Amino acid sequence: MSSAGPQEHPNSHIEIGYGKQLMLFSGRAHQQLGADIAAKLGVELGGVHLRTFTNGEVYCRYEESIRGADVFIVQPISGNPLTGITPNDALMELLEMVDAAVGGSAHRVVAVCPWYGYSRQDKKSAPREPISARLVARMLETAGIDRILTMDLHSGQIQGFFQKPCDHMTAMWMLTRYFADQSLEDLVVVSPDAGRVKLNKKFAATIGAELAILNKERPAQQVAEIGYVIGDVKGKTAVIVDDIIDTAGTLKAAAQTVRDAGATRVLAAATHGVFSGNAWENLAAAAFDEIVVTDTIPLPSGAPDNITVLPCADLLTSSIRQIFTDGSVSEVFRGENQLF
Amino acid sequence: MSSAGPQEHPNSHIEIGYGKQLMLFSGRAHQQLGADIAAKLGVELGGVHLRTFTNGEVYCRYEESIRGADVFIVQPISGNPLTGITPNDALMELLEMVDAAVGGSAHRVVAVCPWYGYSRQDKKSAPREPISARLVARMLETAGIDRILTMDLHSGQIQGFFQKPCDHMTAMWMLTRYFADQSLEDLVVVSPDAGRVKLNKKFAATIGAELAILNKERPAQQVAEIGYVIGDVKGKTAVIVDDIIDTAGTLKAAAQTVRDAGATRVLAAATHGVFSGNAWENLAAAAFDEIVVTDTIPLPSGAPDNITVLPCADLLTSSIRQIFTDGSVSEVFRGENQLF
Amino acid sequence: MSSAGPQEHPNSHIEIGYGKQLMLFSGRAHQQLGADIAAKLGVELGGVHLRTFTNGEVYCRYEESIRGADVFIVQPISGNPLTGITPNDALMELLEMVDAAVGGSAHRVVAVCPWYGYSRQDKKSAPREPISARLVARMLETAGIDRILTMDLHSGQIQGFFQKPCDHMTAMWMLTRYFADQSLEDLVVVSPDAGRVKLNKKFAATIGAELAILNKERPAQQVAEIGYVIGDVKGKTAVIVDDIIDTAGTLKAAAQTVRDAGATRVLAAATHGVFSGNAWENLAAAAFDEIVVTDTIPLPSGAPDNITVLPCADLLTSSIRQIFTDGSVSEVFRGENQLF
Amino acid sequence: MSSAGPQEHPNSHIEIGYGKQLMLFSGRAHQQLGADIAAKLGVELGGVHLRTFTNGEVYCRYEESIRGADVFIVQPISGNPLTGITPNDALMELLEMVDAAVGGSAHRVVAVCPWYGYSRQDKKSAPREPISARLVARMLETAGIDRILTMDLHSGQIQGFFQKPCDHMTAMWMLTRYFADQSLEDLVVVSPDAGRVKLNKKFAATIGAELAILNKERPAQQVAEIGYVIGDVKGKTAVIVDDIIDTAGTLKAAAQTVRDAGATRVLAAATHGVFSGNAWENLAAAAFDEIVVTDTIPLPSGAPDNITVLPCADLLTSSIRQIFTDGSVSEVFRGENQLF
Amino acid sequence: MSSAGPQEHPNSHIEIGYGKQLMLFSGRAHQQLGADIAAKLGVELGGVHLRTFTNGEVYCRYEESIRGADVFIVQPISGNPLTGITPNDALMELLEMVDAAVGGSAHRVVAVCPWYGYSRQDKKSAPREPISARLVARMLETAGIDRILTMDLHSGQIQGFFQKPCDHMTAMWMLTRYFADQSLEDLVVVSPDAGRVKLNKKFAATIGAELAILNKERPAQQVAEIGYVIGDVKGKTAVIVDDIIDTAGTLKAAAQTVRDAGATRVLAAATHGVFSGNAWENLAAAAFDEIVVTDTIPLPSGAPDNITVLPCADLLTSSIRQIFTDGSVSEVFRGENQLF
Amino acid sequence: MSSAGPQEHPNSHIEIGYGKQLMLFSGRAHQQLGADIAAKLGVELGGVHLRTFTNGEVYCRYEESIRGADVFIVQPISGNPLTGITPNDALMELLEMVDAAVGGSAHRVVAVCPWYGYSRQDKKSAPREPISARLVARMLETAGIDRILTMDLHSGQIQGFFQKPCDHMTAMWMLTRYFADQSLEDLVVVSPDAGRVKLNKKFAATIGAELAILNKERPAQQVAEIGYVIGDVKGKTAVIVDDIIDTAGTLKAAAQTVRDAGATRVLAAATHGVFSGNAWENLAAAAFDEIVVTDTIPLPSGAPDNITVLPCADLLTSSIRQIFTDGSVSEVFRGENQLF
Repeated sequence: MSSAGPQEHPNSHIEIGYGKQLMLFSGRAHQQLGADIAAKLGVELGGVHLRTFTNGEVYCRYEESIRGADVFIVQPISGNPLTGITPNDALMELLEMVDAAVGGSAHRVVAVCPWYGYSRQDKKSAPREPISARLVARMLETAGIDRILTMDLHSGQIQGFFQKPCDHMTAMWMLTRYFADQSLEDLVVVSPDAGRVKLNKKFAATIGAELAILNKERPAQQVAEIGYVIGDVKGKTAVIVDDIIDTAGTLKAAAQTVRDAGATRVLAAATHGVFSGNAWENLAAAAFDEIVVTDTIPLPSGAPDNITVLPCADLLTSSIRQIFTDGSVSEVFRGENQLF
Repeated sequence: MSSAGPQEHPNSHIEIGYGKQLMLFSGRAHQQLGADIAAKLGVELGGVHLRTFTNGEVYCRYEESIRGADVFIVQPISGNPLTGITPNDALMELLEMVDAAVGGSAHRVVAVCPWYGYSRQDKKSAPREPISARLVARMLETAGIDRILTMDLHSGQIQGFFQKPCDHMTAMWMLTRYFADQSLEDLVVVSPDAGRVKLNKKFAATIGAELAILNKERPAQQVAEIGYVIGDVKGKTAVIVDDIIDTAGTLKAAAQTVRDAGATRVLAAATHGVFSGNAWENLAAAAFDEIVVTDTIPLPSGAPDNITVLPCADLLTSSIRQIFTDGSVSEVFRGENQLF
Repeated sequence: MSSAGPQEHPNSHIEIGYGKQLMLFSGRAHQQLGADIAAKLGVELGGVHLRTFTNGEVYCRYEESIRGADVFIVQPISGNPLTGITPNDALMELLEMVDAAVGGSAHRVVAVCPWYGYSRQDKKSAPREPISARLVARMLETAGIDRILTMDLHSGQIQGFFQKPCDHMTAMWMLTRYFADQSLEDLVVVSPDAGRVKLNKKFAATIGAELAILNKERPAQQVAEIGYVIGDVKGKTAVIVDDIIDTAGTLKAAAQTVRDAGATRVLAAATHGVFSGNAWENLAAAAFDEIVVTDTIPLPSGAPDNITVLPCADLLTSSIRQIFTDGSVSEVFRGENQLF
Repeated sequence: MSSAGPQEHPNSHIEIGYGKQLMLFSGRAHQQLGADIAAKLGVELGGVHLRTFTNGEVYCRYEESIRGADVFIVQPISGNPLTGITPNDALMELLEMVDAAVGGSAHRVVAVCPWYGYSRQDKKSAPREPISARLVARMLETAGIDRILTMDLHSGQIQGFFQKPCDHMTAMWMLTRYFADQSLEDLVVVSPDAGRVKLNKKFAATIGAELAILNKERPAQQVAEIGYVIGDVKGKTAVIVDDIIDTAGTLKAAAQTVRDAGATRVLAAATHGVFSGNAWENLAAAAFDEIVVTDTIPLPSGAPDNITVLPCADLLTSSIRQIFTDGSVSEVFRGENQLF
Repeated sequence: MSSAGPQEHPNSHIEIGYGKQLMLFSGRAHQQLGADIAAKLGVELGGVHLRTFTNGEVYCRYEESIRGADVFIVQPISGNPLTGITPNDALMELLEMVDAAVGGSAHRVVAVCPWYGYSRQDKKSAPREPISARLVARMLETAGIDRILTMDLHSGQIQGFFQKPCDHMTAMWMLTRYFADQSLEDLVVVSPDAGRVKLNKKFAATIGAELAILNKERPAQQVAEIGYVIGDVKGKTAVIVDDIIDTAGTLKAAAQTVRDAGATRVLAAATHGVFSGNAWENLAAAAFDEIVVTDTIPLPSGAPDNITVLPCADLLTSSIRQIFTDGSVSEVFRGENQLF
Repeated sequence: MSSAGPQEHPNSHIEIGYGKQLMLFSGRAHQQLGADIAAKLGVELGGVHLRTFTNGEVYCRYEESIRGADVFIVQPISGNPLTGITPNDALMELLEMVDAAVGGSAHRVVAVCPWYGYSRQDKKSAPREPISARLVARMLETAGIDRILTMDLHSGQIQGFFQKPCDHMTAMWMLTRYFADQSLEDLVVVSPDAGRVKLNKKFAATIGAELAILNKERPAQQVAEIGYVIGDVKGKTAVIVDDIIDTAGTLKAAAQTVRDAGATRVLAAATHGVFSGNAWENLAAAAFDEIVVTDTIPLPSGAPDNITVLPCADLLTSSIRQIFTDGSVSEVFRGENQLF
């Protein structure tokens, strides 16, 4: 404090000490994840009243004062079969929770969205489309977030759609470690299409496997495309890696092509398991030996036995703690926190 | 054009004439209303591809060039039983359509939302609530609307949540005319609660009826509130007027109180018929002689016979035409376009 | 702090402790209120040079450093007969004080405006009007406030005109307590018009009184409106409650109607006593038994004896202290800090 | 228009011709100037209802539709003795007129402020002052102006406080022509202080006069400053030029110093005649042979006979016409429209 | 209004017709391209004074009125050996031209940047890096562009860094046509690394060639990476496609690997030829049979003979014409204007 | 902290103490100055990787975590002969460092720009020029600075181009003290032109010298301007004071005029020594007895012996320390920190 003031007016101010407070809340998109993080952080989840009116509008109210606190809101932008929430409900609920936190005088408001919905609409692939991933970023910033914590965005550029800091984590170290721990031999990592080669290349390099790529070709006009493998998978254990598994249609075809090319075992790995539409049917038809994802999204009911779900609460908890204490998030990943 | 440029560089510019173009699109929240407006405007609805992915995310793409056009998007922020759209889906679809229209270089983008969802969350009625009606306004402006056209907002102040022009229409003239045309005698207009007295007062004055008010009182601690009528309804035809009928819980109780006080006929009128939850049951129990609403929201299935739905396409069409041609919207209402 | 930095560069940073400082300043709209709050907070009012140039422009300069402090500026947006300040002078002075506080590197700037001028222009009641209450909110935010502390806004939605947090207090508990303490019997609370029924209903319920409503009717074309009471006031003590008493024209007519209907005593209560124009004449003509307001606005000269002014410094001081220490403002009101 | 749309959907749009409309309104700060400009433009002033409530708040409402029009609002940010408006009233009235014009769907809103109040508070000359000229610019832009038309700003940098286009005109050509037309001999232009030398130098050069400068010096501590002339004024006609004459205190001293140094005639010239406080007394004491200003500000009552007021309506009208027709404003001044 | 205005005030407005004007200016980054576009548009380049002061600051001034015009500014964000401009000079010059165009009251300001500098810094690939491609977008929008026209961005997501419309063109159709016209046989398209497989796949499919991919592997710790081809290039003509050729270091190694794998001819193609640093040496060492680029960037001196530069003025001119006349830009590319 | 939360949920938050951290980084525009400040602050310069790619684009990456720190970036917006950086490179590098600091979650980002490039383009002096000093301010704010620390801006109004706090220091006390310490006799301070009289007047008053002014006159059409002195310099030591010495063309002519008028010694003083173009030749021709500047800008090579460079690190260090500890910056200058 400047000496000017108090010298002239010895009573003109009150000084207090300063203690920051972390409060963690969960929306209805993934309450299990919220609870897991709370447990690891050693806090109780903050009380928040959340409901959907009969007309479909959502509503929230914090049940305790959040004034001056760092408010972290856990909410992947996804549906949740347990609460009946859809992705758009989850987004609107998150926006309301942010608006209410700002209005309730939180010190900082941090959205914790391990799964960032609409991330695949991150550019125009046809004229007169929206860029919905940017739209979501703008919505969150307009509502008032101070930062966002997310994981394995469909493209790293989405980080640039935010003007506020965006902490971008990756689950890929966790996934590669999972495979490395199994000491699988004759491994080949297979990119399911041309757009994911870079990811698969890095995955392969990390676990010391070879790389192959799936491509499609249309032998003649009016003829269906035929998939084939560029590279060698014969007699090997193939791991097909992607960032997202959604309806698994591509994966079903990929598994077939890889098997046709002689792979003896076929596995799939991805950070985000959306599993919508006919996902379970497609995965059953693909007959994977194992499918490995993380729990950024609640698993829909009906999941088959060969799915392994790795928990991401540890990663999120470490990052939240670093953010709160102004530690380094990149250190959690040793500077390698971009999706490969 | 300034003479300076061409005098020195006779070839340095191209001049073209200027013709504005109106294009009308409809989201999936109320396609019938979009079609009705298009028919009255004498245009075809513009082609737009709209879909919901299996994972619940919505998507849009305009199928024709909108560059330089005034794009009007008809989308009440409501669910639609015909398309399975929820209010949050409708909102996100609208935001995407706005984003895509801006990115597609529309000249102006106008949201036509006769029903403005979340309008009842227009202030904090408890601490740490969001002000969701403001949030929706900010979302629309961030997405890029140039103006909004809406009807009978839950409070006139919501207009002030927008920084862009908000054309606010009222259906109340249409509703009062409907009753006036029936030459009902011994009419009394009854406000269902203390917050709607102003609206009912104006409704009463317009149709030349008397005014009464419903109030509730708790005779003693631990005893339920008892409703009663302030004013005289005995032997009269009572019309209970509100802006919105949602679950109709309040209306059910109001009808009973009014009947108990001696009203011989009981009718209800409102601009917006949400009719969610147990609305049909409550309305059946209330045994109204007639329920009159407009079609700002698509009617849910199972509607009883005693509901009269007045079409609002005429009002919307007149206003859209005035906006497009820079005519006066208030003239459509002779300067009386605030909800009473 | 991350361990990364200091390990590599042990000297690369300076760390200091952190002590927040509260500084309280008063504009010229209500220096008595500023002094009262300072006394209750236990601080001296900060030194600020304020003047109006002969040409009518206002000017300010803080006389002590405010760098890093939480600056609270007490300034109802009202005129002040003692300093000759008009409402627009008060607004401009406040805006300048905010601008100078931001430029002088205050940590946070909080406007303390118990009376929010222009609050009655909170929506368009006719076409092509401004929404001046929103305009004032935008002005304050553009100048740089971090939050605003205000009391009994004319409508709760005005809170939504701000994007920054708006702490909204109410004086109604203080007013109801004042009446409750007098143990008046046969009390009836009378709403002066249809727009204030909700407030009067809650007031009545709080002090255990009955409710009546004033209405006007035009018996025939070309004939003046005649006021009448809906409900029963005969032989009772009537309290007419409003948020604002300005010229008291409505109140004068209301008092007459209530007396004509047989009330034995008539009192008036409001949070804000503007008392402009012919207020004193109108109130004299109304012959109220008592008029109760708070001191959110300095009382103009010539006030009659039957005015009771309740001090609001306690409420403001509690709220300021909560804001400064990140306590809960709603707790000061036990979560009931909306105007009823 | 793209051929894509109409080819596929021949009826999907309406095309209309486009005619821009200029509408001119005047606030209450200088209605004579508004009327003069209207007359020269060949339009009638648009109807706008303007009032000050008894509590000091101002109010406006446009009485005719402005939708789609280019709305020009004439309002110097000054007081007006005829209407009792103060500078802060004028500013707030202007802001409300802008807000209402935007809300009323004007195509463009242009503030015509020949006198820009608060222009002397254009930088911090002491710590913890506001930069009020910037504050006013931000207020106008927040309210919604599309551009501003102003004259002889106290510093050219104020133009940079706006992000919207600011058309900056000068009256100095008009003033120099006035003196040049009088064929005065032995003319010397005298800068009243060090900060106005540049202006006086250019003025001198334009009318072919010599330049002198007034300076002050303090011969010793505790002794009053003594003014003196740098340069030669003996036996000459001295013209002291400034941008603003306000209280005329400086001018009074300057006139004395110049006379003491032997000038035979002393005249004063400025664009803006504020004439507040003791201006008339000071000017009388200074015994100028003539004082020449323009009518950017309404003349306060009591003006002496030796004041010549040059009308600026011609300049403003030409500029408004150029703005409306997208002509070149700088051309009105042949590229020399900065204050010298 | 509406009829109210003109009926009451027959003279209260002026109406004029409206003619838009296109004006084309070129910065100093690629004046040849500006001239080419002007010639194809049939306009003269507008006069603008551009200079670099001796201290390195750049300056601009439009030499003719631009008021009301659609101003298109041709300026790739690149250096230019002819004018000595560096990329940062080009960016600052562009920003100044935009600022001056806005201040000079242009109707719309369009940046025409066929090469978007800093496009490779479009995401964080390490912690605490800037996202410079977003920074440039924000700079342009802050300076005041209404839209940008660009070509083959390094990633499509950069389009989302803009909030203003971004017309994104591709030169890939021009490049594929160039190869298709040569009727080369036994063609294989070779992706230079894992991140460009998608582009090469589409390129291959368009010209009916096969696809191969270059990968690198580190056989053991402490050993250099070894490049190899996934897929078959033996005896074939290999075309290595990228969006940018800069120092050509990667390309040099790629050419060697492809030749080692048996390709008989090796060609390279890219939209943007930056050719900085040792580019000419590297390309000489790579011994390409042909290198094909477009002229989005001026060619540095010392270019070898085997470089073919395809002109992009036709594409830019068509797009500018569509933008100006509100035609469809995507139509120029039949909806396929994303970089593959 | 509010008692509400913890009472109900004793574990629902974590509290930590708070220690602010100051980190100082230097761009490549003036690394010596960065090092000097670091030494005086007692910190090591933070590690930041800075490079210019061969294509001219600049790049940065902080080498240690900056999360939660107050990041001060020393970077005059000037060229640097030692690093080959140009002013536009310096500006872009600074913007990138700010962008990366924000993205890296710095608590506050402060630009330390003792020399503010483009400051002479602070207003339009001709139509259709940019206001580049405002453009630079907007760029810095858009990139994300929280405040800026600068020195002797070309005009004080530039401070108003920022919306964020701008700490404005002056080197003039240092310069006047330098001359005062030499006890020079018969001193006259000579303003080099009409625009710098105010500065020279204050300089003269501070060191107790007289004031003279240089003016130019054109005796007749088609004849060159002739400079002359207004005031008396004969037999005196003349000090010509300016804020900037750039090419020294004006200074060369001024020195000649002053000598011709009889001054015996001629010295020059300025805060900022840009010394571009023919500066050294011009200064040699002017034969000053001494030229005194500060080191806000690195001295170009070839400086003559008669240049004295006063270090400004002390001033900057004091100000940085005050900013970091929320002390008063104006106190460093005793409230006199505007350029005279």
